[in-house]
Amino acid sequence: MPSAAQIPLAMLLVFAAAKLLAEIFERLGQPGIVGEILAGVLIGPQVLGWLAPSEFLRALSDLGVMFLLFHVGLEVKASELMKVSGTALLVAVAGVIVPFFAGWGICALWGEPRLESIFTGAAMVATSVGITAQVLASRGLLDMRASRIILTAAVVDDVLGLIVLALVSGMAKGAVNYLGIGLTAGLALGFTFFVARFGTRTVRHVMPRVQARLRLAESEFALAMTLLFALSVLAVYAGVAAIVGAFLAGMALSETAEGRVTELTNGVAELLVPFFLVGIGLHFDLSAFAGAGTLALAGVLLVAAVLSKFVACGLGALRMGRTDAIRVGVGMVPRGEVGMVVAQIGLNLGVIGHNIYGTIVFMSVATTLIAPPLLKLAFGAPTEMEREIIRLG
Amino acid sequence: MPSAAQIPLAMLLVFAAAKLLAEIFERLGQPGIVGEILAGVLIGPQVLGWLAPSEFLRALSDLGVMFLLFHVGLEVKASELMKVSGTALLVAVAGVIVPFFAGWGICALWGEPRLESIFTGAAMVATSVGITAQVLASRGLLDMRASRIILTAAVVDDVLGLIVLALVSGMAKGAVNYLGIGLTAGLALGFTFFVARFGTRTVRHVMPRVQARLRLAESEFALAMTLLFALSVLAVYAGVAAIVGAFLAGMALSETAEGRVTELTNGVAELLVPFFLVGIGLHFDLSAFAGAGTLALAGVLLVAAVLSKFVACGLGALRMGRTDAIRVGVGMVPRGEVGMVVAQIGLNLGVIGHNIYGTIVFMSVATTLIAPPLLKLAFGAPTEMEREIIRLG
Repeated sequence: MPSAAQIPLAMLLVFAAAKLLAEIFERLGQPGIVGEILAGVLIGPQVLGWLAPSEFLRALSDLGVMFLLFHVGLEVKASELMKVSGTALLVAVAGVIVPFFAGWGICALWGEPRLESIFTGAAMVATSVGITAQVLASRGLLDMRASRIILTAAVVDDVLGLIVLALVSGMAKGAVNYLGIGLTAGLALGFTFFVARFGTRTVRHVMPRVQARLRLAESEFALAMTLLFALSVLAVYAGVAAIVGAFLAGMALSETAEGRVTELTNGVAELLVPFFLVGIGLHFDLSAFAGAGTLALAGVLLVAAVLSKFVACGLGALRMGRTDAIRVGVGMVPRGEVGMVVAQIGLNLGVIGHNIYGTIVFMSVATTLIAPPLLKLAFGAPTEMEREIIRLG
Repeated sequence: MPSAAQIPLAMLLVFAAAKLLAEIFERLGQPGIVGEILAGVLIGPQVLGWLAPSEFLRALSDLGVMFLLFHVGLEVKASELMKVSGTALLVAVAGVIVPFFAGWGICALWGEPRLESIFTGAAMVATSVGITAQVLASRGLLDMRASRIILTAAVVDDVLGLIVLALVSGMAKGAVNYLGIGLTAGLALGFTFFVARFGTRTVRHVMPRVQARLRLAESEFALAMTLLFALSVLAVYAGVAAIVGAFLAGMALSETAEGRVTELTNGVAELLVPFFLVGIGLHFDLSAFAGAGTLALAGVLLVAAVLSKFVACGLGALRMGRTDAIRVGVGMVPRGEVGMVVAQIGLNLGVIGHNIYGTIVFMSVATTLIAPPLLKLAFGAPTEMEREIIRLG
């Protein structure tokens, strides 16, 4: 293959496969997003072997989920999220504790080594907000109360997941640095809270003044992109995921950004989000399931991963009524790329073996495939009153 | 640096530096595009050393110039280019022959080895249409006759450059396969002509029917992207650059695509074109200029590169009048990434040494920096009648 063809060919394969399977799934009455993830499984090493994970695809996937969360942030006001922050905190905390002990307990009962069991619990903690956000955004449901709770809880969940991972990694290395973890957690929480609380106000004061002085073409988009990348970098240094920074950047801009920024961002997200979804599918790996025992463990862990998040987060949101509790519970189920990252860290630390790695990746991909149809059921067609709320924004 | 920060940090550095220098150049009354290229020189290994060329940046740069040419193609109708194809052919042929012999001759007179001299000539052949296209597109000048001649000539130029490179590479390897080169050239010309001639018609017949049956969200954009990547891949296999395929894809869609595709594509181009421009600057390398002799040769070659293209292409377009001849001559001057690719091939073949490589890269970057201000002068403010033509499209 001519080397100049590599990049357009990879773009073609990923994009066309994603859209083709999305079309097929839409026709079957299923969410297109599931088709896009399965497109990754299909063209990936497990089935057709047309494409393997690569640095380039990984980078586009990272950018894709950043732009997805930025785009979602643009449609969400920080003040609206603050209103549900109490419930969201409860949802996030319950949704971290229950899956952690469920995963740990099941592995321990199964006879797995202690550290490996604890690490599996840690991998079951973090929700992949990207999947739920994409489903909600594509159906115009971001303005609903349950959606706001999910988004807020997912951001908190990311910080809590960081703490759990730090604790567990410390145990794996033989020494838990509680002070260090406390400082890291404080920095992460502080950054997130500070940007969420004061970001919008700062942007509203600063952006129009800066923009008015610029002679650059598309200066508003240029400033928005700079904020997006800057907050993503700061988020990583503060200890949270880059996508949390991307989400906060979008939210900070949500009250000032004109239609133009949303439009241009839409284009990037439309192009790159399939790379995020296909990327999840590409990592799907059945080769770990050599024996029936591993397969059975994977099945049990999958059921536990779904039920523990659903029940814990649902109960956390119960005071909002049963409908919202079910929606929130379902929305927190997908583990997506986050579970896979934890599994990768465990593998690198030498704490988990190849079969537990495969089990966690299986759980991550499967929860991600299960969530969109469940979300469709849980949210259903919006009621007349909800439609009105959506319409009025 | 945390590895999760690498991608957003590279995005931030490239994008923010490009836009900052673009703003400064606009304020100085200079084209912003020159600032964006110089941003690459500034943050690159030569000055601040904040960023070095990498696989990831290279991929984004390739995507950037693909989307740039696709976006330009969307604003150009194939039928309009066909009208100027005679003049464009003359411009392209003259603009290949004269710079080739100028480069070869100068190096030979300078006492460089024969093959190295011939290779330098070959590196002076190909115009980087990306730079001129970006200047013309950003100033809304794509509809002018000179712009159409430049775009058409640049596409032909790419095919001719391919032939020259194949001939010269064959000489370097000790055996020129004339039959093979003839077949390659025929395939390249056939592909380009065929898609340009029948692409629009095919798209007009096929696209609306396919699109009407799709349930996918943003189905028009999905089809457009698929066509873009597919034609880019085919172009490479047919022997021309991926960006020629991207341009042809845009042009094929120009009569059917609705505003939505242009809007979404705009977003991607706004984000990624700076990576193309900064990428050119990143490769700027003064370390080759150890001695005053090399520096003098570089200066002479630069003057020859500018004058030979300007005079040859200008004369080729002379029958369109002096104004258009000057515009076309200036528009064909930038060598950009194409000259650098040829230099890289020469280095890999072992035909040229490090100092000639550096000289060619210097010539490529310098012609690219010179062209935008000259274009601004040559096109000036549009006359009243031209404004009217632009307005009527």
